[in-house]
Amino acid sequence: MKFTVDQIATMIQGAVEGDGTQSITGFDKIEEGKSGSISFLANPKYEAFLYDTDATAVIVSSDLELKSTVKSTLIRVKEPYVAFTVLLQKYQEMMAERETGVQPTAHVASGVQLGKDLFVGHLAFIDAQSSIGNYTSIYNHVSIGKNVHIGDNCIIYPGVVIYKDTIIGNNVIIHANAVIGSDGFGHAPQADGTFKSIPQLGNVVIEDDVSIGSNTTIDRATMGSTIIRKGVKLDNLVQIAHNVEIGANTAIAAQTGISGSTKIGENCLIGGQVGVAGHLSVAPKTIITGRTGVTKSIKQTGQTLGGYPAMNNAEFLKRSALIRRLPELFEQIKNIK
Amino acid sequence: MKFTVDQIATMIQGAVEGDGTQSITGFDKIEEGKSGSISFLANPKYEAFLYDTDATAVIVSSDLELKSTVKSTLIRVKEPYVAFTVLLQKYQEMMAERETGVQPTAHVASGVQLGKDLFVGHLAFIDAQSSIGNYTSIYNHVSIGKNVHIGDNCIIYPGVVIYKDTIIGNNVIIHANAVIGSDGFGHAPQADGTFKSIPQLGNVVIEDDVSIGSNTTIDRATMGSTIIRKGVKLDNLVQIAHNVEIGANTAIAAQTGISGSTKIGENCLIGGQVGVAGHLSVAPKTIITGRTGVTKSIKQTGQTLGGYPAMNNAEFLKRSALIRRLPELFEQIKNIK
Amino acid sequence: MKFTVDQIATMIQGAVEGDGTQSITGFDKIEEGKSGSISFLANPKYEAFLYDTDATAVIVSSDLELKSTVKSTLIRVKEPYVAFTVLLQKYQEMMAERETGVQPTAHVASGVQLGKDLFVGHLAFIDAQSSIGNYTSIYNHVSIGKNVHIGDNCIIYPGVVIYKDTIIGNNVIIHANAVIGSDGFGHAPQADGTFKSIPQLGNVVIEDDVSIGSNTTIDRATMGSTIIRKGVKLDNLVQIAHNVEIGANTAIAAQTGISGSTKIGENCLIGGQVGVAGHLSVAPKTIITGRTGVTKSIKQTGQTLGGYPAMNNAEFLKRSALIRRLPELFEQIKNIK
Repeated sequence: MKFTVDQIATMIQGAVEGDGTQSITGFDKIEEGKSGSISFLANPKYEAFLYDTDATAVIVSSDLELKSTVKSTLIRVKEPYVAFTVLLQKYQEMMAERETGVQPTAHVASGVQLGKDLFVGHLAFIDAQSSIGNYTSIYNHVSIGKNVHIGDNCIIYPGVVIYKDTIIGNNVIIHANAVIGSDGFGHAPQADGTFKSIPQLGNVVIEDDVSIGSNTTIDRATMGSTIIRKGVKLDNLVQIAHNVEIGANTAIAAQTGISGSTKIGENCLIGGQVGVAGHLSVAPKTIITGRTGVTKSIKQTGQTLGGYPAMNNAEFLKRSALIRRLPELFEQIKNIK
Repeated sequence: MKFTVDQIATMIQGAVEGDGTQSITGFDKIEEGKSGSISFLANPKYEAFLYDTDATAVIVSSDLELKSTVKSTLIRVKEPYVAFTVLLQKYQEMMAERETGVQPTAHVASGVQLGKDLFVGHLAFIDAQSSIGNYTSIYNHVSIGKNVHIGDNCIIYPGVVIYKDTIIGNNVIIHANAVIGSDGFGHAPQADGTFKSIPQLGNVVIEDDVSIGSNTTIDRATMGSTIIRKGVKLDNLVQIAHNVEIGANTAIAAQTGISGSTKIGENCLIGGQVGVAGHLSVAPKTIITGRTGVTKSIKQTGQTLGGYPAMNNAEFLKRSALIRRLPELFEQIKNIK
Repeated sequence: MKFTVDQIATMIQGAVEGDGTQSITGFDKIEEGKSGSISFLANPKYEAFLYDTDATAVIVSSDLELKSTVKSTLIRVKEPYVAFTVLLQKYQEMMAERETGVQPTAHVASGVQLGKDLFVGHLAFIDAQSSIGNYTSIYNHVSIGKNVHIGDNCIIYPGVVIYKDTIIGNNVIIHANAVIGSDGFGHAPQADGTFKSIPQLGNVVIEDDVSIGSNTTIDRATMGSTIIRKGVKLDNLVQIAHNVEIGANTAIAAQTGISGSTKIGENCLIGGQVGVAGHLSVAPKTIITGRTGVTKSIKQTGQTLGGYPAMNNAEFLKRSALIRRLPELFEQIKNIK
């Protein structure tokens, strides 16, 4: 990109302080700001970097009172972080040269319905009875099974595997090598010690505006559907078992696993490496801190949980502190005796 | 599918109570039963749904005494859950239209031995000196290295990567994007702080009737074989390190990791997000609850373990309860003093 | 392979004790030694196997005093394990028949720069503006995005996905289905409960001599680079979030996750299933034992950590032992009262 500071200020409705004619060619964090780049200051913790950065321009708050001189040109806005992300977004849109059409080495089964201005990359595969919406990009090496329906404006990155009967809404992003719709883990132990596998005949339904990370796995339901509601964000290497439902606008960080038939409410925030046992329900707006193990349903909305088995996070932190003091406790008892 | 209730009752040797001429077109859980579907009642906890469900038919126990009127036609059998899974199985078999033949965009190296009625999907790759058994399905984008031998009746889902020298038995199912036979993690630290990587020259052996989940990884042995015994079931995102052996009919849930050279006995049940350290052995019929960390060999068969470091699970639950009471304990000591 | 014991002794500069004319055709661990194979004894714990093994030859220490008779021919060297790995290495080099050239079913965009004697496997895809160094092997089904630069002597195994703008040094090995450069998990919560995704415009930089395990995921930076320094070894299913930096010669075992913007120092050893929270720094030469959860920056170099929240490992082991004694403690208090 190449814009002047003045042009950028116009894009984000900011007021320029300093030389607005300088050129901006990239973005940097303020502590790594280089000449030619634009940065932002939102968190007061980082203010010291403002007086030191080599960034050509810095987006700062309208309210900021400078404590020293700055080399950079400032753009003052109400909310610097929001303005900066708007700028990133505009930049990303400008840079996006979406390819369209079906590449010659892709294999699309006959009868597949293809929307307008979609893209199907090299060596991708789409099986029969499926449909792909308008403006959707199916990248190379993606594998789409039979009777899969994908909406508009989706991006399916390389190597993603989508099993048969999956239904995907609009504006869904699925990152590389994620797997959607593999069999749920249902194996009934038999008297002779072997397992009998329960057929997994359901599917996966992914609603609009969902993002799914790399190498994440979402299993199909035994019957019915595993459901990822509107606006859910899943990080990398997350496991969603069969018949799970993730409520709208819930975010789940990397390496977390949700066991079979559990229902997670709306607007939950779930950290990384969390485990939630099967057949539970978790109330809306629950915050589950990283590495927590949830073994019982959470009925009250808006709690913050920690520990294993999960408890109120403040309680968990207190218990952790007391555990560190156990030697002292044992010592005291010895003395008392 | 489309069957009458009477026809289904015949399939599962049940007795019809109500109108047996109605049509069934799908399966539902009893709490989600819709007109046209068949459901089952096995767990007494769900009995209330029986008097309320819209399912056209419900499979129930011969012994069940109705406490109220039901709208659904009943099929009475000895074991409702078993009968229902038999029905699912029959349905799955009827629906399965197995494709056969080698798709034109697949690349099979010359000399590869191909069994009868097998399927090799579009854009799959099979390298030299390998053999694939009868009735086996290799789906699209599967990657099979040199000198790999796969038995009969296997299903290898899209995107699976099987490294050279792997040996796979009959009736093995491997889900999408799993990796079999990558190098074990063997790096010897050198005096200068760098690592020297130990060549990983062994292979992976997978016996009959094994199921492997999506994105699971099984490393080749340094020397000899990493072995997955007959009937083992592995869930998604499981890590099996080099030179591990998993005993027959052991099941391992998602995101669990077994470290190098550890031997897990037969008929173990291992929950999700468990970690087992390296060079251990775990006795047959051990049950390891989710999130447990095993740091020592388990010698006595049939134990149930929990916690980290792992202990008897009852002991772990007791300790967890006492940890919650620590504030009370500290308070008491203060008072005593 | 087929060598005599004498020939092998020459390769590793050892002294033969016994019949040096016998043929060696494989490697075995000493406890599994078969006729025709060579093994080694490094750990005194395994000495009993020496008097029992069927291995044709065993590499032992020059200093070893035999306590009983051995059937095998011995090769005496200073450091048996080092000698054995040298032998494995030589064997691996001899066996490696590197293929070269671009396979006809691969798709390489026009303008991509290809080094000499490289290999591009069947059905691989390399997008525009990228370059691949000399002697590098890109296996089948690998997917390389736009403007990716890969150095010399690298091995990229099947199914790996490398997103646009990634930079990879020399002698880098990436195992199957790993994903390099997917979007960081950056979603800003909005007032209405939905998320606004922050554009992830940075890239991933991987320096020389790095190894990356199967199904591992490394996210691109929001701005700037996620950096994996020279000599780092990552195991399978590891998660490296956006803007993380892993210091030179650090090793990380399977299923560990490093959260966003965290910096791990040089020469750290990190066990499996570890979690490190975001925006932390971990001092060089830190050892983090398996399953540890690090929630604060580690400032002092050379510590060994355990537990969650992480503490000195000796302290953690002591606390764990005391937790097991909690019932006794509660009992004592009851008695005192």
